[in-house]
Amino acid sequence: MAEPLAPGAAIGILGGGQLGRMLAVAASRLGLRAHVYDPAPGCPAAEVAAAATHAGWDDAAALAAFAGAVDVVTYEWENVPTAALDAIEAVVPIRPNRRALAVAQDRVAEKDFLNGIGLATAPWAPVADAAALKATLAEIGCPAILKTARLGYDGKGQARLSAPSDAAAALAEMGGRMAVLEGFVSFEREVSVIAARGIDGSVACYDPGENLHEGGILATTTVPARLSPGLRSDAVLIAARILNALDYVGVIGVELFVARTGLLVNEIAPRVHNSGHWTQNGCAVDQFEQHIRAIAGWPLGDGARHADVVMENLIGDDVLRVPEIAREAGAAIHLYGKAEARPGRKMGHVNRVRPKA
Amino acid sequence: MAEPLAPGAAIGILGGGQLGRMLAVAASRLGLRAHVYDPAPGCPAAEVAAAATHAGWDDAAALAAFAGAVDVVTYEWENVPTAALDAIEAVVPIRPNRRALAVAQDRVAEKDFLNGIGLATAPWAPVADAAALKATLAEIGCPAILKTARLGYDGKGQARLSAPSDAAAALAEMGGRMAVLEGFVSFEREVSVIAARGIDGSVACYDPGENLHEGGILATTTVPARLSPGLRSDAVLIAARILNALDYVGVIGVELFVARTGLLVNEIAPRVHNSGHWTQNGCAVDQFEQHIRAIAGWPLGDGARHADVVMENLIGDDVLRVPEIAREAGAAIHLYGKAEARPGRKMGHVNRVRPKA
Repeated sequence: MAEPLAPGAAIGILGGGQLGRMLAVAASRLGLRAHVYDPAPGCPAAEVAAAATHAGWDDAAALAAFAGAVDVVTYEWENVPTAALDAIEAVVPIRPNRRALAVAQDRVAEKDFLNGIGLATAPWAPVADAAALKATLAEIGCPAILKTARLGYDGKGQARLSAPSDAAAALAEMGGRMAVLEGFVSFEREVSVIAARGIDGSVACYDPGENLHEGGILATTTVPARLSPGLRSDAVLIAARILNALDYVGVIGVELFVARTGLLVNEIAPRVHNSGHWTQNGCAVDQFEQHIRAIAGWPLGDGARHADVVMENLIGDDVLRVPEIAREAGAAIHLYGKAEARPGRKMGHVNRVRPKA
Repeated sequence: MAEPLAPGAAIGILGGGQLGRMLAVAASRLGLRAHVYDPAPGCPAAEVAAAATHAGWDDAAALAAFAGAVDVVTYEWENVPTAALDAIEAVVPIRPNRRALAVAQDRVAEKDFLNGIGLATAPWAPVADAAALKATLAEIGCPAILKTARLGYDGKGQARLSAPSDAAAALAEMGGRMAVLEGFVSFEREVSVIAARGIDGSVACYDPGENLHEGGILATTTVPARLSPGLRSDAVLIAARILNALDYVGVIGVELFVARTGLLVNEIAPRVHNSGHWTQNGCAVDQFEQHIRAIAGWPLGDGARHADVVMENLIGDDVLRVPEIAREAGAAIHLYGKAEARPGRKMGHVNRVRPKA
């Protein structure tokens, strides 16, 4: 097992969006130096990082220099090109590991992995073409949802099928890419578990949060979630099984459907997750610091919740409500330093905090 | 009243130590850009600030460029040279204002101000020389403490007098500088109130914290403090009276002695204060963000406490205990990124958090 990184060590972060920004701040709290790699000079994370490299994902010299300047590399974004990861990994460890990335980058690999370790998912099948879609629809039935296997997020690259006659239009949305058809399961709610695994194999989970989406984008996460004690411990055990099976180091986000038959895994994100932002104001150690602790070889921190929190994303023009929100009792504002409030763009979030009920 | 600063506006911070560092992070949370001014290139705040100027306090060109690049200037340190402040104020507002600085920079001015607005202090008198010290000692009695009027902090520039025969040695410690003799008051405990006043004149106070010092340096702050409801509201009223009398904008730290006769004001600090670090893990809006909100013309945030907290300073080699502390339940670590752990140097702090009792 590697020695824990000492104060002054450098954490490389691939991607300089809001997750990278909050990871950089967490690193600074532990006396570590954040070094962000992102093509965009004005990216949100560079402003709070000790160092930043602005270069392309195909810039071998910049990647090598970056890798040589840091002690470990992590990422805020699971779609970093493979060649870039190869170049970095030749020099310095990447955590979470490449297997976790490979699984999370591809819905076919992800669902195969989940089912393979005995976890339930919605019914699904890979769809390469119209014939496969027709056959799969006959088996899974409608309504169903067709998703590109790779590079989908926040509701993009998805098409809903209400009837078999929607097949052609849905397939056209995929643009010829490999896809996955998922059966629509009737579920009471969606919850997510933010969990972490340390270099020593120890696992720590945050209390599950209850998620509401609007237009395919997370709108709010509420803790505590409405979950029976039994499902609460099932959720934690599912997260731990995934972490151990991947020999994972770092924070993971696991989205779960609460169905009549129990919990189904919707998807996993091998990184800090939007549904874990509530931990910033509800726990002694938030998900960002927990991730930094794990990848730096520190002991995991205490994820016990000391307050009740509702996290609300501020998307696009929602950010115009900040002056009002700033007057609200118990409201903790987190803005990402993005200049332009485009529709659908995550501009910030607010954690509404109350003493633990 | 000035318009609130919009996202992307720049906050100038004079001094790049740990207070500047935590102010810079708080500014980033509100979507504002921190610009630190500090002579030392390796200062703690520069690592997390969007911009930094490293130049001397007497560098007129650098001060003018800095002032021209920001929308408001604040300070983490009350002893910024007057000429530097003059150069900045010619260009951009300084908050809190110069009067607050003038009062806090000089113990004679401070105590005159406090008594002048009807607040009780320990008995005191200005001491310019041996004759004044002798006369004052006869009036105030021993034990007493002699302090330089200016530039003292963390127990420096102080000498204790157990008997009149200590007078010559104590005066020698002052090095010919103007001093203040303070009578020793018998007090049960020291508490401090961290309070803020907005541009609109509104005032918000955090729950008083109970302070323990070791060797003249703050060791721990505990919230809630052991204080009767009556004294708790007295503490808040004292802070509000000071803020209003100074037409203050920003966060202030007010140290109070709990004596038999009631509360005595020990000293005021016109800035965020070490005894307010607990707010980072106990409130939706911590003292650093509250200060930024105030000087940026935002509404003050909610300082209600949602958890119990004990803050412990990590001084010098205390920082070597971080690996153990990292394993403690409920411990939130805050390190300042300082490379060298010199004796007496504040390296970080830990907030131990529990659900509110």
